Amino acid sequence: MHDEATTHYIDMIDQMTLGHRYIKKQFGKVPRIGWQIDPFGHSAVQAYLLGAEVGFDAVFFARADYQDVLQRRKDRTMEAIWRGSKSFGPSAQIFAGVLANHYEPPDGFNFDIDSTNPPVQDDPELFDYNLEERVDLFVQRALEQAKEFRTNHLMWTMGDDFAYEYANTWFKQLDKLVHYVNKDGRVNTFYSTPSFYVDMKAASNETWPLKLNDYFPYASSANGYWTGYFTSRPALKGYVRKLSAYLQVARQLEFFVGRKVRGPNTDSLEEALAVLQHHDGVSGTEQQHVADDYAKRLYISSIESEDLVNLALQHIASGRFSMNHTPHLEMVTSQVSSQSKATLRAGLNFQQCPSSNISYCPQSEADLSGKTLAVIAYNPLGWERKEIVRITVSDYKVDVFDSSGNLIPSQIIPVSQASRKLREQHLKSIRKPAVSDESIFELLFECSTPPLGYSTYYVKPSQNDSYSSEYTLIQENNENHDVYLQSNSAQYILSSSSRLLDRVKLKDGVEVSLRQSYCWYNGSDGNTEETRGQASGAYVFRPNSSSCFPLTDNIKLSSVKGSLVEEVHQQLSSWLSQVLRTYKGSDHAEVEFTVGPIPIDDNLGKEIVTKFSSDLESHKTFYTDSNGRDFIKRVRDYRSDWELEVHEEVAGNYYPLNSGIYLSDNSIDFSILVDRSMGGSSVTDGELELMLHRRLLYDDGKGVAEALNETTCMGDDFSTCEGLVVRGTFLLDVHSTNESSFSRRNLIQRKLFPLQLVFSVSNDEDGWLSVSEYSAMKTGYQLPPNVALITLQEQHDSNLLLRLGHLFENDEDETWSSVAIVDLQDIFAYRKIKHVEELSLTANQRKCEMKAKHWQIENDDVQPGSYIRSVGFVGDGYQIELRPMEIRTFSVFLE
Amino acid sequence: MHDEATTHYIDMIDQMTLGHRYIKKQFGKVPRIGWQIDPFGHSAVQAYLLGAEVGFDAVFFARADYQDVLQRRKDRTMEAIWRGSKSFGPSAQIFAGVLANHYEPPDGFNFDIDSTNPPVQDDPELFDYNLEERVDLFVQRALEQAKEFRTNHLMWTMGDDFAYEYANTWFKQLDKLVHYVNKDGRVNTFYSTPSFYVDMKAASNETWPLKLNDYFPYASSANGYWTGYFTSRPALKGYVRKLSAYLQVARQLEFFVGRKVRGPNTDSLEEALAVLQHHDGVSGTEQQHVADDYAKRLYISSIESEDLVNLALQHIASGRFSMNHTPHLEMVTSQVSSQSKATLRAGLNFQQCPSSNISYCPQSEADLSGKTLAVIAYNPLGWERKEIVRITVSDYKVDVFDSSGNLIPSQIIPVSQASRKLREQHLKSIRKPAVSDESIFELLFECSTPPLGYSTYYVKPSQNDSYSSEYTLIQENNENHDVYLQSNSAQYILSSSSRLLDRVKLKDGVEVSLRQSYCWYNGSDGNTEETRGQASGAYVFRPNSSSCFPLTDNIKLSSVKGSLVEEVHQQLSSWLSQVLRTYKGSDHAEVEFTVGPIPIDDNLGKEIVTKFSSDLESHKTFYTDSNGRDFIKRVRDYRSDWELEVHEEVAGNYYPLNSGIYLSDNSIDFSILVDRSMGGSSVTDGELELMLHRRLLYDDGKGVAEALNETTCMGDDFSTCEGLVVRGTFLLDVHSTNESSFSRRNLIQRKLFPLQLVFSVSNDEDGWLSVSEYSAMKTGYQLPPNVALITLQEQHDSNLLLRLGHLFENDEDETWSSVAIVDLQDIFAYRKIKHVEELSLTANQRKCEMKAKHWQIENDDVQPGSYIRSVGFVGDGYQIELRPMEIRTFSVFLE
Repeated sequence: MHDEATTHYIDMIDQMTLGHRYIKKQFGKVPRIGWQIDPFGHSAVQAYLLGAEVGFDAVFFARADYQDVLQRRKDRTMEAIWRGSKSFGPSAQIFAGVLANHYEPPDGFNFDIDSTNPPVQDDPELFDYNLEERVDLFVQRALEQAKEFRTNHLMWTMGDDFAYEYANTWFKQLDKLVHYVNKDGRVNTFYSTPSFYVDMKAASNETWPLKLNDYFPYASSANGYWTGYFTSRPALKGYVRKLSAYLQVARQLEFFVGRKVRGPNTDSLEEALAVLQHHDGVSGTEQQHVADDYAKRLYISSIESEDLVNLALQHIASGRFSMNHTPHLEMVTSQVSSQSKATLRAGLNFQQCPSSNISYCPQSEADLSGKTLAVIAYNPLGWERKEIVRITVSDYKVDVFDSSGNLIPSQIIPVSQASRKLREQHLKSIRKPAVSDESIFELLFECSTPPLGYSTYYVKPSQNDSYSSEYTLIQENNENHDVYLQSNSAQYILSSSSRLLDRVKLKDGVEVSLRQSYCWYNGSDGNTEETRGQASGAYVFRPNSSSCFPLTDNIKLSSVKGSLVEEVHQQLSSWLSQVLRTYKGSDHAEVEFTVGPIPIDDNLGKEIVTKFSSDLESHKTFYTDSNGRDFIKRVRDYRSDWELEVHEEVAGNYYPLNSGIYLSDNSIDFSILVDRSMGGSSVTDGELELMLHRRLLYDDGKGVAEALNETTCMGDDFSTCEGLVVRGTFLLDVHSTNESSFSRRNLIQRKLFPLQLVFSVSNDEDGWLSVSEYSAMKTGYQLPPNVALITLQEQHDSNLLLRLGHLFENDEDETWSSVAIVDLQDIFAYRKIKHVEELSLTANQRKCEMKAKHWQIENDDVQPGSYIRSVGFVGDGYQIELRPMEIRTFSVFLE
Repeated sequence: MHDEATTHYIDMIDQMTLGHRYIKKQFGKVPRIGWQIDPFGHSAVQAYLLGAEVGFDAVFFARADYQDVLQRRKDRTMEAIWRGSKSFGPSAQIFAGVLANHYEPPDGFNFDIDSTNPPVQDDPELFDYNLEERVDLFVQRALEQAKEFRTNHLMWTMGDDFAYEYANTWFKQLDKLVHYVNKDGRVNTFYSTPSFYVDMKAASNETWPLKLNDYFPYASSANGYWTGYFTSRPALKGYVRKLSAYLQVARQLEFFVGRKVRGPNTDSLEEALAVLQHHDGVSGTEQQHVADDYAKRLYISSIESEDLVNLALQHIASGRFSMNHTPHLEMVTSQVSSQSKATLRAGLNFQQCPSSNISYCPQSEADLSGKTLAVIAYNPLGWERKEIVRITVSDYKVDVFDSSGNLIPSQIIPVSQASRKLREQHLKSIRKPAVSDESIFELLFECSTPPLGYSTYYVKPSQNDSYSSEYTLIQENNENHDVYLQSNSAQYILSSSSRLLDRVKLKDGVEVSLRQSYCWYNGSDGNTEETRGQASGAYVFRPNSSSCFPLTDNIKLSSVKGSLVEEVHQQLSSWLSQVLRTYKGSDHAEVEFTVGPIPIDDNLGKEIVTKFSSDLESHKTFYTDSNGRDFIKRVRDYRSDWELEVHEEVAGNYYPLNSGIYLSDNSIDFSILVDRSMGGSSVTDGELELMLHRRLLYDDGKGVAEALNETTCMGDDFSTCEGLVVRGTFLLDVHSTNESSFSRRNLIQRKLFPLQLVFSVSNDEDGWLSVSEYSAMKTGYQLPPNVALITLQEQHDSNLLLRLGHLFENDEDETWSSVAIVDLQDIFAYRKIKHVEELSLTANQRKCEMKAKHWQIENDDVQPGSYIRSVGFVGDGYQIELRPMEIRTFSVFLE
């Protein structure tokens, strides 16, 4: 039961595919119901993609806004037909039911060990005989519920969290109730299933209400908006997102060289990531020790995939891999089975740097005297790609060469103060000796990579005083003048007074006011009468007031000017800094924030926010993604399903971001694209805000029973703890509205799947890397710009699981919201397709055998057949079509 | 697992006999172990009578004084040989073990559903593998415990209150631990039983410490003396005691007329009383709704025994019962099976008055115009008895006749103010209309009854103005002079100043100062730092200080002078009154107290005490009974087993009373004999105190989770509640030390088994009661004064269960601590004994087959064989001996 706010659609697909594979294997069954009873709000993508497209007839859930539910009970709209996709309309709709009583039994019928509800005592000879009383209450509860639901079929959920510790206590009572209630005859009751229930609903002649968009945000009371968890545990959220991309890289390479059952393989990372999707996993709403366990599982499994990636790349690069045959890794895997994994790792000369986000990479920082560092840049996208990469090295006098031996431009920047601090803390926390980081530099150069493949670059220390790397200092800006950062198409301008981003000048001369600020909300302690017990916590965002207290006094500025990157480093306080940068050849700007340890010595919980105020006339409107896929229009202080009573002006307008958030005045779009899930909003016209980090001192009473107060612990016994520091990046993209969608979708894909760097050091250049460039695709082929490779995974049956997705919605982009065509054979340069079968999204049934239920809908103005879906192949061979937002899933049988 | 403080030994015997019968029937087993793990202190009678005499090899328990246990752990005297009886010595000793860790598993090995102790994870492939860690801790715990216990056999109690909700969670872990710990080999572990454990202890060559007396009082911490429950719920305790006596009456009559399997029989009352003996039953330490349920069960079952008594007496009195044949109640019981019980009850003209304690008896209060009220006085004692009885009637002009038609003296007293109030409240609480009680009187006359039988007396309204009843007014005493109450042998003198008892003048002219007072302890709320969280509650008596606040201002006195009874009525306040009375022909004085509703509008919990201060030089010493049987010497602020640290000067000197408490200066004894269990002490030399009632506002944190605040609720919806009023009586007995023991033992028996009155009204005198006097015993025979009939019960196998008990301890009385002889055939006038078999105390095995274990004891100065016990029969026939304190149990086969 994955979360629906802080999960990415690719992770959701992977997780459900794993689950459905398991269910099919163990039980031979194809599930028909989505059972999302506990997640804290429900997404459009869940409804249409992980619902209808999976072949579900219905989705049930318990949690919806209390105002919404009140209305729905009155209107008998607890159950509705949900069309979650603007692009698919009725072609991907699903029966969606809000459960009658959370997911508990009706009041009075909980029979768990510690329940005080009376068991049925049906022996009149004994004390406490209560048969009639119990039957009467049962019937009464049914009649009460019947008033709020359509048709005379009702569902009762006879369980709860932590219930059925001893199942017999339940079934003993349920057996009795079924028997006596049916004997009574006023209602008919039986053990049933959600699918049977939905069959009965469909068989009735009922007409159903229509539901569009989603069920966010979720409030359980006037001041209880569950919008804090959109950001809770940002480091865990970042780790999940990073490994999610890494799993795709590993799967691709695993497919190229052949999946090994006994490992190393991607199974463990697939499983760990699947577990993390839980609604108390990536959501950040677990206790600290559970979060620690989650991170540990991710780490352990990531190591196995790291081994796999190193092995596979070494195998391909060494040339031992015969590309036009079924791949085998025999040599390597015989090693795996006869040696311990640790030995295997040490024996490899390919290595990676998972901590490069804090500029820490022992591999690339090695002393290169007389040696060469090879940097293999793997590109998991189906497109060719040109990007500037950044690695740490221990010498600034270096030359960088491409695989043809051509010297290419490079830039050197000293490791910043903020990064040095993080490196130091990191080494302490993993109990490694401190490294003198005065001699560590960041080396930047531009990589060009083919689709689904890699290029290799060589870094060599200069033998003499002549070297090509451009050394750029981090220079303090004490003067009082504006600072300009130049991107490919725009100028990002910081004002001399605020020392923060102030405006953006586009290439056509249009200037957009864009004032950044940082501030914090004071998380309510819930301890006063006015706060009525609702604290801000892991689940709930509940600021003490709508005021966001500024954090922008005395900012220290320094800047870097180079030919590849321009940066401004902004130190806002001892615990808050950011880098704003633009890259050669890119339009957007990147913000790298470093937040923490958030101070709490004033006993105030803090939720750290950055805001961007523009002069765009947004008329309360902004757009946020649904699980990173569709963008949904949000209107401040408004819900389309009911007349909203506003009690929380900030928290009640927060929405989950997975890809990003944007504003538009129909001329200019301002987008922010994120590197992990977080909460965001537009609480003022023209403004966007992101919540980056939270440190709170009170539990919010929603089940986690702990304050969200993350720390990093160091020292021999890990007893020295400081508030957790979180570093991340987001992109700022300002474009004219007609260009913005393409830019946004493209940036999202690049951000989601960064180049994966793998390092190797050698003093023997010859014959070291015989294959220094590689692409799995047909030479020169790349996927159309509106199509992304979503899954490329060798399945347990050796066939290939392939998913391709259209990246645009209907009417999103004039050019790219069109039908795309892909020839599947083009993706596999070295393998011939024997046969392809199209499957449901989770690959547990054939697409052609799926059949949606028919529902009659109230006031439905959509014509049947007005939403065309792609099926089968176009012409001969394996050419397929993809219509807007379509994801098509195939089992590919290769020769 | 009965309580050991507030239970009477006869109830304990009955309860364990029932239990052992059940175990034998269901499992064919004779238990060998007493498992008293939870009771709050442990009695001498439990050890020797309900232990050794039952055939137990050992008794185990968890709770002993924390100071005692600390010492025992150090000395390795947690396990000892307990000689609970001064009279029996080593002939009734038992292995007694204090459990190592309450009755929980060793720290870290609780495997209940909600325990956080880690389960054994023995799969190294999974997370949280902890096998060695778990085995190490297991071994460590064993080694720790071994330091405190003798021999290398240790017992672990693998469970707890409310544990094993799902037994599988335990056994799964225990199985693993047994396996791996034995594999480890440092200790050997297995599923075992207490009896096997004791066998191993006995088989060792170990020498054991000796334990005498008992384990009272129990303190779990410096301020946590569990001595409040000695008095908690005095009304429930009184009800149990009353019905306990009533059960013996009903059993005797049941035996006389023959037990009917289908009822009415005494089974239900036997069962209800057995349940009440639970250590959270009669102890008063249950929640209110549980106490209500207990009382309900007692009431329902008492009704069945009431039916039985009425039926049996009607049967005998009607003369239908042929006394020299096996009894049958065919006629009556055929009625029972064909009619409802309610009809049966209505059809009888014999009735009883269970509410006579509050002077309420609809039966005897009936309008007698032209009718005769027959009063059948049944005497359950084995002795002839002459006593003054008291009934309510609606006319004061009456004559009373004995069964020979002789007019006998009688006295009339108006119903007192205090009783009228109670009657009124009682009627409200059972929702009956109020009765004008102005015309209700108490009629007293003297009954002479044969042993184990009855006499009949006739009350007739006078036809004219001449009548024999002596009308005695309740006269206010406003004058300032002493008041004298004359008993058979002494004068009880109230002083004019205190208006309370001041002194007693014995027949030989000796005057003993004996000043009564009432006062209250303020039950601690445990809320301040000094009270460190320990409130006074259902279990714990914890006064806020040692001060007892006086309750004796402005006492209103009135008195009654008559030829049968003299009374002083003392109204101490609106909620506290007492009657002090002496009866013609008796030496003692009786105190009838009426306490409640205890006021709590000052938000102070109150524990109501009455004190009697004498000039006896008691040197800190006093005597209290053990479960109503032996008297044990108590010394203030002293324990014989360890050097006592005194933290609670009052509560730490409280002991449970079941029969009574006395002081002695070796010349004069002053005894108080109680009608129910209560707490008592002598906190000052020469003084005795009784705690009569408690009303508290805080839970004491020992498990009941409720404040002990009993109320009576009235009105149509029982919503008008007042604090519970408790009425009871106790006897004051002052005698020279050499006479006192006989007087005390005799009064105890009379108080324990009062005459049972049964009423019948008729206007047709002739042939109404053809048998108006009856005794089951041989004409003219009665038991010796030092022997009591303890049980006379027809068993399920139709044989008779007979228990006789010697009433005196070794050296207690110069005359009566001698061997007594009883010819069993003399007890059964109308039945001939075929065969007699002596059994263990709980009748589950033959006495001759029982064998006690041999234990070597440290520093034992008792010579083996110095304690002679009675066995078998003396001479021909069924003559048996009874030595001091012996109770002998027989199965009697009658022709």
